[in-house]
This record gives sequence, C-alpha cells and structure tokens, in this order.
Amino acid sequence: MTNIRVAIIGWGNVGRYCKYVIENTIDMELAGVIRRETSLKNFDEELNGVNVASDISELSDVDVAIVCVPSRVAGDKVAQILKKGISTIDSFDIHSEIIETKKRLDKIAKQNKAVSILGAGWDPGSDSVIRCLMKMVNPHALASTTFGGSKGGRSMGHTVAVKSISGVKDAVALTLPNGAGQQKRLVYLELEKGADFNNIAEQIRQDDYFKSDPTDVIAVKDVAQYDTLNHGVEIEQRSEDVFQKYKLEGINPLMTANVLISAARAAYRATEQGQYGAYTIIERPLVDFIPGSLEDQLKEY
Amino acid sequence: MTNIRVAIIGWGNVGRYCKYVIENTIDMELAGVIRRETSLKNFDEELNGVNVASDISELSDVDVAIVCVPSRVAGDKVAQILKKGISTIDSFDIHSEIIETKKRLDKIAKQNKAVSILGAGWDPGSDSVIRCLMKMVNPHALASTTFGGSKGGRSMGHTVAVKSISGVKDAVALTLPNGAGQQKRLVYLELEKGADFNNIAEQIRQDDYFKSDPTDVIAVKDVAQYDTLNHGVEIEQRSEDVFQKYKLEGINPLMTANVLISAARAAYRATEQGQYGAYTIIERPLVDFIPGSLEDQLKEY
Repeated sequence: MTNIRVAIIGWGNVGRYCKYVIENTIDMELAGVIRRETSLKNFDEELNGVNVASDISELSDVDVAIVCVPSRVAGDKVAQILKKGISTIDSFDIHSEIIETKKRLDKIAKQNKAVSILGAGWDPGSDSVIRCLMKMVNPHALASTTFGGSKGGRSMGHTVAVKSISGVKDAVALTLPNGAGQQKRLVYLELEKGADFNNIAEQIRQDDYFKSDPTDVIAVKDVAQYDTLNHGVEIEQRSEDVFQKYKLEGINPLMTANVLISAARAAYRATEQGQYGAYTIIERPLVDFIPGSLEDQLKEY
Repeated sequence: MTNIRVAIIGWGNVGRYCKYVIENTIDMELAGVIRRETSLKNFDEELNGVNVASDISELSDVDVAIVCVPSRVAGDKVAQILKKGISTIDSFDIHSEIIETKKRLDKIAKQNKAVSILGAGWDPGSDSVIRCLMKMVNPHALASTTFGGSKGGRSMGHTVAVKSISGVKDAVALTLPNGAGQQKRLVYLELEKGADFNNIAEQIRQDDYFKSDPTDVIAVKDVAQYDTLNHGVEIEQRSEDVFQKYKLEGINPLMTANVLISAARAAYRATEQGQYGAYTIIERPLVDFIPGSLEDQLKEY
C-alpha cells in the first residue's frame, strides 16, 4: 500500500502539529510545507529536511493539502488548490458560513475531480459528529455545547481574529464556560504604540466571532503570561429518560491536527471512489477517517 | 414527502419501545407488528389499531423492518426478510460474529436490492461511533468501555441468553462497572421446579455472553424485585495530551429503539440512492440517521 502524500499549507500552530501528526501516522507521508515567506531569514529548525515551497505547484504528487490558514482566508485558499485537482481539508470554523462555503467548494471540487472536507477541526468537526450522534440516541432533547474545558482555554479562531485588527501587537482570546451551554470570552491584548484601546475593544465585541458572547477585553504588557495551548468542551444532552455527555480536553492545535489528518485520509478514500465534491464530516462514513481496513475496525465494533 | 413505513418484528421490550418512538417520529409511520402468536389470547391493548400479523408478507408497502428478536436468531430472520426485498435493521450484539454475519447479509441484500444495517443498538452501535470518533480526535490512545452506568444496569442481550437456558423460569442479568474498562455480571434467577442450580450457573458462566467477565449467579424467589430497565456506559480515552469521555445513561430499550429507528431512516435513504448491501453504522454518513435536510443539520454544525 502506498502512503497518502499530504502537504501542509501554512506554518502556524496547527500546521506545526499537523507535521508532528503526519510523522506519527502509519499510512501517510509529508509531501511538503507551503509558507508565504520561504527566505532564509525565516529558517525554522523544525523544517530541516522538509520540502518547503511558497506554492503547492512546486511539490510533487500531493494527494491531499491541509489548509492551516485563518478561517477568513481559508475558503479562497482551498478553492485555489482544488482548481489544481488536489483534494483539501480545512478547519474553517465560521459556523454561519458553512452552507455557503460548502456550496461554492462543491462545484469547484467536482469540476476538478477532487474532494474537499471542510470544517474538519474539533468544533465544528468532531463535536458536530457528537451532536449528530446524540440526536440519534435521543432525538427529542437539545444538546448544549459549553466551551473552555474545566479551566478555560485558548480559542485559535478567536485569537487570530483579534490579532488581525490594526493596532493589536499581540493577543490571546480565552473561552470560559459560563453555565448551561453559555460561554464568555476573555481577550488579553498588547497594543501598538498610540493604538486606541476603547476603539479596538469595540471592534472585538462587534466581530462575528465575539458578538453573541459576553466579552471582556483587557490590555496587558505581555500576552505570553496569559497564554495556553489547552482548550476543551462539554456537550451535554438531558431528557427525562436518557442522559448523554461528552467531554474533551487537551492541546488545542494537536486535537485540530488529529481531526484534520483523519479527514485527509477520508478525502483520499473518497477520491479513490470517485466521490468528488465538498463534504462535512457527518456526510462521510466515519470508518474512512481511521487507518487500517474495515475488518480491523469491525473487530472492535 | 411520504413517510417511511416501518414494520416491527418481535414484540418484546425493544419492539414496544420502537412503536413508541415511531409514533413520535416526524418522517415515519408504523406499517405493522409481526408476532409469532397472533391469536386473541395474546391480545395486548397497546396493539389496538395496529396491523398485527404473523408474517411480514401480510403487511403492505413496508420500507424497513426493525428486527427486534434475540441476537442469536436475528441473523436468520434478517436474511428471510431481505430475501423479500425489504430493508432491515437489527441490534445484533454478538461482537465476535459481526464480520461473518455482515458478509452473509451483504450478499443477500445486494441480490434483493435492499439495505441492512446491523449492530444498530447502542453497543454495538452508537458506542461504536464514539469509539471511532475518539480515534479520530486522538489516534494513539485506547478507549476503554465500562458498562453499567453509575448504578449498574440490565443487559437485554445477556438477560435473553439466560432466559433461553432450560430450567430457567425467569431471569435478569445486570452489568456492573468494575473499574478500568472492566465489568462484572450479576444474574438473578428463578428456577423451574427440579432444575439444577449448579448446572445452570455453570452453563451461564460458559456462555459466550458471560465467559470473559466475572459472573455471580444468584437464585431468588422473585426476579422482578431485582429488575430495572436502566442501563448505561462510560467510554474513556486518556493520553498525556488529550482526554475524552462519553457517558450515556437511560432506559435501555428506549435508547436501543431510538438508534434502531434512526438507522431505519439511514437504510431508507441508502436504498433511495441504490446503495444496496449490509452495513454497520460507521460505514454510513451520520447525517442520514437524522430527520430533515442536510441544510438543517449544517445550520447547527
């Protein structure tokens, strides 16, 4: 059996963890890493021996590209790669835009005989599978999702959104559980000289990522002190007759990378079957996300 | 949109709950109930107004049959119904025979343009989805499954297995958590006159359902006092970097019926797409198990 050749697009937290996961995955190999800036001054020891390029066309025989760039630019990047006939995975996390984005990518994927699995992080992503499963086991109760884990955690999507605001030097956005499926956001900011704190705090609160949750914004001297890579979630569904609860905690970009890489396998298998198009995880058979044969999985079914 | 017409095969605990679930399900209707014995002396008020027959050929336009008979006879019953071109669902729970049974049913289903989803209770079934999902989120840790819920629960498969032993008048088999993915079994027995307790206890301990767990067998005067419809499970997966836990507790036959009925929908949708054959839940897209359109699901993805 030949390995699935995977390229990583973007070299942030998620990209780095994807490299680690691919290197520890039995049926995959790293085709290369795409960075915006490949000059020597950005040399990174972790990339020793890795094909680094600024465009995916420079890599050979890529089966699947994992797009690890901020959600707001992920859709365009995915479209670009699909047009080259290369399948893609992303962890696009803007829930309200998933239907629209999927429609657009589905067309491009079909035209170019490729597969795109989108929203394939842990939320949306594996948590969406849990919410679907809970409905299967108990169809009439509502599941509530509470982010933050027992100690609160760092939201990558929210952090990236804040960092992109002009006048912000560095930032970390934490998510804290707030009871009954609610959460609050806590943003620590380092400002550029002369930046207007009140104006930036208002921009954050108005941002789609934040506007539905209570959000505290605090200016600090050194964001690093408040940072963490951990995150978590609790999904609970309760009725008179059936109770279900799922809990996840761990290193945020590692959990994201694990789901992305599992989805890369599912995309590869879908292309082998000629099932081109754009999908979310709940539209693909779960067994396709796991290495090994169906029989292996059924042994522990 | 026309409703999915569902027949229930077998009128035990699971069959009864299936009727309740179908009546509360938006896209389904009950085509009828199949019982071995349909004479008046078995009249059951719950069946008022329901088509009751002793063979599925007597019912009209059945899309999917839910086979609610003991696992050890379920395979043959399913095969019989598939041969009539009717799709089937069962909650066959003998983990070690799933691969073999699936192979056999797959052939029959394809020949007769039908779909069979097997092992579609909560374990195997929805728990298998959880175990698969946990691997997706954290591929290198092992999940441990502990049955019994916080107070121990009644295992239907185990109870039926004990009841089928000659000399047993009534029985209930409870499953109790025993730590670290282990469980013990507790069997309460009412014996027929003259039955040999030691011999029966030994038969139970040698049975495939019991032989890998510590099993206490206790003779009592009235099994009903020890009975419960509740059951539960905890599935936990733990590594240094990621922790996951899923907990389910509730009315055992209701949880089973909910999954069975969800699977009936998935089977119906698979036949509409011409994807005939025998499947486990992890081989079908999860969204097919949920009522409503894909767009509805993606809105809460």
